[in-house]
Amino acid sequence: MVIRTVVWGENVHEQTSQVVADLYPDGMHGAIAASVQSAGISATTATLQEPEHGLSEDRLTQTDVLLWWGHAAHGDVDDAIVERVARHVHAGMGLILLHSAHFAKIFKRLMGTPCNLTWREAGERERLWVTSRNHPIAVGLPDHFELENEEMYGEPFGVPEPLETVFISWFQGGEVFRSGLTYKRGAGNIFYFRPGHETYPTYYDTNVQQVLRNAIHWAHNPAPRVLDVDAAPNVPTHQALEPLTQKGARPHKDGEAGLR
Amino acid sequence: MVIRTVVWGENVHEQTSQVVADLYPDGMHGAIAASVQSAGISATTATLQEPEHGLSEDRLTQTDVLLWWGHAAHGDVDDAIVERVARHVHAGMGLILLHSAHFAKIFKRLMGTPCNLTWREAGERERLWVTSRNHPIAVGLPDHFELENEEMYGEPFGVPEPLETVFISWFQGGEVFRSGLTYKRGAGNIFYFRPGHETYPTYYDTNVQQVLRNAIHWAHNPAPRVLDVDAAPNVPTHQALEPLTQKGARPHKDGEAGLR
Amino acid sequence: MVIRTVVWGENVHEQTSQVVADLYPDGMHGAIAASVQSAGISATTATLQEPEHGLSEDRLTQTDVLLWWGHAAHGDVDDAIVERVARHVHAGMGLILLHSAHFAKIFKRLMGTPCNLTWREAGERERLWVTSRNHPIAVGLPDHFELENEEMYGEPFGVPEPLETVFISWFQGGEVFRSGLTYKRGAGNIFYFRPGHETYPTYYDTNVQQVLRNAIHWAHNPAPRVLDVDAAPNVPTHQALEPLTQKGARPHKDGEAGLR
Amino acid sequence: MVIRTVVWGENVHEQTSQVVADLYPDGMHGAIAASVQSAGISATTATLQEPEHGLSEDRLTQTDVLLWWGHAAHGDVDDAIVERVARHVHAGMGLILLHSAHFAKIFKRLMGTPCNLTWREAGERERLWVTSRNHPIAVGLPDHFELENEEMYGEPFGVPEPLETVFISWFQGGEVFRSGLTYKRGAGNIFYFRPGHETYPTYYDTNVQQVLRNAIHWAHNPAPRVLDVDAAPNVPTHQALEPLTQKGARPHKDGEAGLR
Repeated sequence: MVIRTVVWGENVHEQTSQVVADLYPDGMHGAIAASVQSAGISATTATLQEPEHGLSEDRLTQTDVLLWWGHAAHGDVDDAIVERVARHVHAGMGLILLHSAHFAKIFKRLMGTPCNLTWREAGERERLWVTSRNHPIAVGLPDHFELENEEMYGEPFGVPEPLETVFISWFQGGEVFRSGLTYKRGAGNIFYFRPGHETYPTYYDTNVQQVLRNAIHWAHNPAPRVLDVDAAPNVPTHQALEPLTQKGARPHKDGEAGLR
Repeated sequence: MVIRTVVWGENVHEQTSQVVADLYPDGMHGAIAASVQSAGISATTATLQEPEHGLSEDRLTQTDVLLWWGHAAHGDVDDAIVERVARHVHAGMGLILLHSAHFAKIFKRLMGTPCNLTWREAGERERLWVTSRNHPIAVGLPDHFELENEEMYGEPFGVPEPLETVFISWFQGGEVFRSGLTYKRGAGNIFYFRPGHETYPTYYDTNVQQVLRNAIHWAHNPAPRVLDVDAAPNVPTHQALEPLTQKGARPHKDGEAGLR
Repeated sequence: MVIRTVVWGENVHEQTSQVVADLYPDGMHGAIAASVQSAGISATTATLQEPEHGLSEDRLTQTDVLLWWGHAAHGDVDDAIVERVARHVHAGMGLILLHSAHFAKIFKRLMGTPCNLTWREAGERERLWVTSRNHPIAVGLPDHFELENEEMYGEPFGVPEPLETVFISWFQGGEVFRSGLTYKRGAGNIFYFRPGHETYPTYYDTNVQQVLRNAIHWAHNPAPRVLDVDAAPNVPTHQALEPLTQKGARPHKDGEAGLR
Repeated sequence: MVIRTVVWGENVHEQTSQVVADLYPDGMHGAIAASVQSAGISATTATLQEPEHGLSEDRLTQTDVLLWWGHAAHGDVDDAIVERVARHVHAGMGLILLHSAHFAKIFKRLMGTPCNLTWREAGERERLWVTSRNHPIAVGLPDHFELENEEMYGEPFGVPEPLETVFISWFQGGEVFRSGLTYKRGAGNIFYFRPGHETYPTYYDTNVQQVLRNAIHWAHNPAPRVLDVDAAPNVPTHQALEPLTQKGARPHKDGEAGLR
């Protein structure tokens, strides 16, 4: 079975910065999609500028794992599309947040926290350490790998305690950061991965590419999407699994929907 | 030190249902506040109908732990107030969600999930089992206790995996439910506690009252509220903790705010 | 790739109880192995009575996932074999503990806790509820399923907080139990699954069989086993990743092994 | 209420190394005990060389939180004492593991994993970052603090995923380490804290002392110790909470103890 991924790119810096345009001539989303494409993974792209940001209901229904890169235009993402993506994650779609997507609406929506951090653009050295040996997302990687030039993100990182911490970064300037974190929200697996600043060739790094392919396999939930993922069905007394007699007052009549 | 709590009550059923009005003549919020008041806990109330729902910035600043009961009017809670409460939780205020508050905006906001479940109003027996021995929230309780008449809530409960599962309920009609769950969001401790349907005398039960007092002590974070809890400060290269030389292009100028 | 499993059975009740012998003529291990055998899973068996309990170093090296059923003879399992199995789990072998294996030496060894519970043999009804929707271990299952006759296990269950709670059981006699729990110890995935008392036909139940097959797929870590999984290598100062000057006294000479 | 702590010291380097003897003339345990002593904390010491290593049943019964420092003589600690300490932790005693105690028998016993890491004695700079804002163990600390000379410990750290990661260390030589981790085993709170090499004045650092005092308050479980913490009581059918009829065969007679 081939995992169907969509790489969502904000596609703004590519139009406004010569450095970024030169580095990623097919867009960052294009470079990322090309790098994860493989025997078991098909990758297409979607961007902010497309109708519905390229994330129609139909498209998401046919997406197993969504990768998200954004930075300059988080505020331009339509709230209705954010809710749509959240609902698909709850129902089982995988989601991988890249770098500055820590401030994407969809990440903050799913985490329930500010998702903030400290930062510095000095092109310094970052060294990622694997903290969960042989975790599926770390398969095939050495115990550590380096990116010679990256933006720094520093702790405290304003996210909930993760299910698992897979990578922690060391920065030349003296900071550390939890760079690979797993979460589950509903039936959807979520992975945040730190590196990927737009002015550095991070997405051409083979270790980074390996992480992304691993993460796609990990995030993929092959079960059918959960239907009506936010339904709250009433179980009438006469249909209870064990015999029951109705007792006491109740605000709802039989068959009435619950209050929200 | 006395822990300052506010019991927030929606205060709707009390006005519209004779059963609820008779059961809780001072309102559910009034009954809850009276039951937790003790040597170490002071309790006041706030309701939906007050200006700013009784939750002004000043009030929240002076609140250590907020308890929340709502059911019929979740949709009437002002989104701006929800954000204000979320921000205080992130900064360190404790939050205790009661029963039907599983669908409160503030709970869904902080969990990032649908928070749905199955339900039945049959006045059936509920038996809560302690699953985390001597957890601070279970102190002084037996291994299990019963509520002879309660609404049923059933799994699957659409919440993230908790930090800890403190109680699990058995229902006469055949369901189970994770009835006591802990979370942390930012510096704020969050506890969800299941029982408390408006038509039953649950808040007069001494075990339930013990849980609430325990939970208030557990949720209380005595550290000063975190200032600027969603700030994302830049650390300029020349102020790095270790000596650094600026390398490569960067989208931001010195001192510029980050993108959101 | 076919997942290589070994079903370890204590094989004592089968020899001493006519009820068990009649119910499981090929042994419980035999019945379990037959039920999980499938296109993607090969299953062999091992028993307490074999040399090295059937778990030689060679055998474990070629085992992807080990399933463990024991009850009457936990104390007869050789401590050296327990350590060997623990080491393979740390290095990446999956482990699935069945029912009364909650008291198996290997489970207590890996959990670090008493792993105790309450129990009753009344042949009562058990109903398992899925608490983690579309979790890989719950794939293809309804929201709940029943076993008409089972032993009861009740909370509090003396285990560490799990990574995820996948199933919770309702018992006719009034108890609840966390019946499906996931853990990771080193590179090894661990799943505890409650049902499976020797005097009932639990392992012929199709839902139970589905859980076991799902759990095998989930527990399988395809990465190569970690070598020297408990090594604590010294990194000499002159080989540090960043330039370092030796400072201060040190108990160890260059190249000396650390203290244990 | 004053929290009664015991600081357990191996007390070997103090006798064999002039550097350590000069640095800690009252022993490392003596220095640690002196530093945590305060209005709310009483501290005594115990050492390997005392009868029962100073940890008699009576002593542990009257200990709220035990701190443990060991390095050169882990193997000399009596297995029976390790089990005794483990049992007290399960029953509710707090436990704080210091530095090289990552390889103490009691830590490996409670974690179920190798607890290994990489290491270097170069007297390099360590900088600890708070990753859980306003966590009770981080109260009163800045976002980061430095130890100018410390031993390096590097990831991967062979421990289970913690409940919470409170500190992460940055090392001058290029490594990172999860330096403050919380666990719960039974009713006992456990905290591992990394710094504290015997040849450096770490325990005189005021931030380190603050962490230890915070950790003692956090680890303290004021509930009475759980009695019979590994009991597995039978609940006879006729005493079930809900009416039950005995069905099917059962290996045990009424009142018989379970199998272990």
